[in-house]
Amino acid sequence: MRRTLPTLSQFVHGIRATNRVLLGQAITLVESARADHQALAQEIIAELLASPPKESLRIGITGAPGVGKSTLIEALGMHLTLQGKRVAVLAIDPTSAISHGSILGDKTRMERLSVDELAFIRPSPAGDSLGGVARKTRETILLVEAAGFDTVLIETVGVGQSEYVVHSMTDVFVLLLQPGAGDELQGIKRGIVEMADLLVVNKADGDNLKLANQARGHYLNATHLLPQKSSDWSPQVLACSALEVKGIPELWTALETYRDHVTANGYFQQNRQRQAGYWLREALEAGIKSTFYAHPAVRQTLEDLEKEVLAGRISPFAAAKKILKEFDNSIMR
Amino acid sequence: MRRTLPTLSQFVHGIRATNRVLLGQAITLVESARADHQALAQEIIAELLASPPKESLRIGITGAPGVGKSTLIEALGMHLTLQGKRVAVLAIDPTSAISHGSILGDKTRMERLSVDELAFIRPSPAGDSLGGVARKTRETILLVEAAGFDTVLIETVGVGQSEYVVHSMTDVFVLLLQPGAGDELQGIKRGIVEMADLLVVNKADGDNLKLANQARGHYLNATHLLPQKSSDWSPQVLACSALEVKGIPELWTALETYRDHVTANGYFQQNRQRQAGYWLREALEAGIKSTFYAHPAVRQTLEDLEKEVLAGRISPFAAAKKILKEFDNSIMR
Repeated sequence: MRRTLPTLSQFVHGIRATNRVLLGQAITLVESARADHQALAQEIIAELLASPPKESLRIGITGAPGVGKSTLIEALGMHLTLQGKRVAVLAIDPTSAISHGSILGDKTRMERLSVDELAFIRPSPAGDSLGGVARKTRETILLVEAAGFDTVLIETVGVGQSEYVVHSMTDVFVLLLQPGAGDELQGIKRGIVEMADLLVVNKADGDNLKLANQARGHYLNATHLLPQKSSDWSPQVLACSALEVKGIPELWTALETYRDHVTANGYFQQNRQRQAGYWLREALEAGIKSTFYAHPAVRQTLEDLEKEVLAGRISPFAAAKKILKEFDNSIMR
Repeated sequence: MRRTLPTLSQFVHGIRATNRVLLGQAITLVESARADHQALAQEIIAELLASPPKESLRIGITGAPGVGKSTLIEALGMHLTLQGKRVAVLAIDPTSAISHGSILGDKTRMERLSVDELAFIRPSPAGDSLGGVARKTRETILLVEAAGFDTVLIETVGVGQSEYVVHSMTDVFVLLLQPGAGDELQGIKRGIVEMADLLVVNKADGDNLKLANQARGHYLNATHLLPQKSSDWSPQVLACSALEVKGIPELWTALETYRDHVTANGYFQQNRQRQAGYWLREALEAGIKSTFYAHPAVRQTLEDLEKEVLAGRISPFAAAKKILKEFDNSIMR
């Protein structure tokens, strides 16, 4: 298997030259569970980061199923490639392990963007855990940026914890909303609304136009009640029609205004640094758990004491203390 | 300080004899940050668990602020002590570190129960993290049960993650609701509704009576749409007035019906075991993180590499790998 793979140098040069085949293969390495694939992927990323790419904008996009995320991403992506920008579209879909890729699984959902030579679309990686899926996407961002894609759109479905994960790896967070979905921020978790830098009411077209504008007014009022952001940015509320490609330039202008605002006040860089620190700690803590549970001293003690804990003969905390002591002793030896 | 404390044997015998002063002091040891206090607390719990107490029922109660949790707990508690049951009331309030105990901070909110000799009320422990607060309450449950309190009510405010924590340490979960708060399960996170075994519409009194019964009907419909529980129990929906002490015997009957149902099908015991296993892993993972970050080999490498990560010169995952390797090497030595 290994001998059919390009070399490290071929990968690095190919990716820097925006060779889509090599980029795709490198992402496959990032997504692979094989240790040799992982090792090569890390070497590639390390080489690429040695000369960091020019600046990029990472945009997180969420919204309930059916709100029109794919259509909006296609419209926004086409708007950007027409200006000569290079656009990568990634996704985090924690349900993809079960449904085998419910979002972006089919490039036909972005018919025009998928054949645009300035765009690169990659479906959500599969994975057992959201943490695993997230790590793969976080590393894929580094690869696509090294390949010169300066605008990275990361889509997620509007369910569960995946929004927090996407928020933790993007510069700006867009919440897509339904017109007439209610006169308040109903149905959307408050935490997700609080993360949003832009709220975009989609489907402002046809019979929905009036409803969408009403919804925009309601959401605008609601955002005034949200706590002040540490970016010192007041969330904007827009209406658009991804289907009729209306309001898309305004959306991009709002994204640029945001970027300029946070670049000027230093938040952009602070946020990226904080995110890098967060991912460092996430990776460390996932790693030490593996080391710990695989340690011979731990395995035997854990097996014995877990039985006592499950039988209620020892408290979980007392058992943990004993196991940790075994581990510490074996480290200190 | 230490010499003023009772001995281990005094604690163990005192708690078994329901000595409230010694019980209170033991809980204070559990809540203390001092290593010697922690050590003694663990010894006390270990001794008490050597002869596990008779069966108990741990009831989690949540609901939005103002829904009447304290009033309901007082009414339910009085109903139980009149039957000769011993009732402990604990709380998990992650906001208490800031507000210095917003729930149960004042026993005057449960005027009658707080002077009932069959009841024991303990405010939420303070703490920097929800995990820390949760651990203290988890251990306090063991202490109050050893002291003969067979019904443990654990209250939490209806905000954030604390419901999940309370759910992870109780046998049955009660969600208290407002009458007329909407015709659906608005404003309550779906995840919390899905955890509830009993939904109780409070304030079914005076002008609210009709509204409460309507709300009960709505919630009843909504529960039919929830996924099947692994306990094979269909959530019940009740209406009550904690203020007028109406519907309280029915609430207790529903709780007993639940207990009998899950005892008969084995879920009660399975759930307690799963919870114990969960808390063992939580305690282990909190412990290994401390060990890891305090390890000399880690501290130096982390400090150096974190700078590189924050500057974007190395990926967080590559840095984590290097640090973990340092750690593994120093363990294997």
